[in-house]
Amino acid sequence: MKKKETVALDSTCSKELMAATDTLTILNGKWKIQIIATLNYSGPLRFMDLQRLIKGIGSKMLSRELQDLETNLLVKRTVLNTRPMTVEYELSPHGKSLERIINSMRLWGKAHRKKIAARN
Amino acid sequence: MKKKETVALDSTCSKELMAATDTLTILNGKWKIQIIATLNYSGPLRFMDLQRLIKGIGSKMLSRELQDLETNLLVKRTVLNTRPMTVEYELSPHGKSLERIINSMRLWGKAHRKKIAARN
Repeated sequence: MKKKETVALDSTCSKELMAATDTLTILNGKWKIQIIATLNYSGPLRFMDLQRLIKGIGSKMLSRELQDLETNLLVKRTVLNTRPMTVEYELSPHGKSLERIINSMRLWGKAHRKKIAARN
Repeated sequence: MKKKETVALDSTCSKELMAATDTLTILNGKWKIQIIATLNYSGPLRFMDLQRLIKGIGSKMLSRELQDLETNLLVKRTVLNTRPMTVEYELSPHGKSLERIINSMRLWGKAHRKKIAARN
């Protein structure tokens, strides 16, 4: 590990670590990672298509989660000039930049499951 | 990005992504990242020293968080043969393996703050 990446416990430590907790908070819950991964894989999607691809999510929940992601500049919402009006959602470049972290978390999570299973 | 690291939306997708959510859940809350980072930086610590280094954490909370981390095999608890008895906590190799993810989250969180600040 390069030195600049060390989790340093100097005077700025608490603030530094809070930035990590920010990321945690932004991804929090059951659905955000799934929404991000789906948009990352499929490209721009209409609300109904997104809901169809994410099994088990209700429309109220999806709507709220998308709003959160939009507020955090991770998802871009575009109203299309169609009749009836349609809305499309896509990942912003900032949203795409989460791919690497989500993948690391996925791989670590898989290793963790093996570890826990081996103990039992 | 190498192909094997892609967040694939095939039949195993939901299960794969749940592994990422597992990681999220394990790190969840205000304190776990701070405890992991402190033990990672300082090496083995007694309970009181750990509490002193993590500003604002109460002993009940610290105790509960350490128990969670122990259950998840991230922290090792050693009872030392001293009088009075003392207990030492240290990061397991499995716990140490979170360093890279926490650092990625920290760096992303910092970039995110800048992004949000620039919007306002």
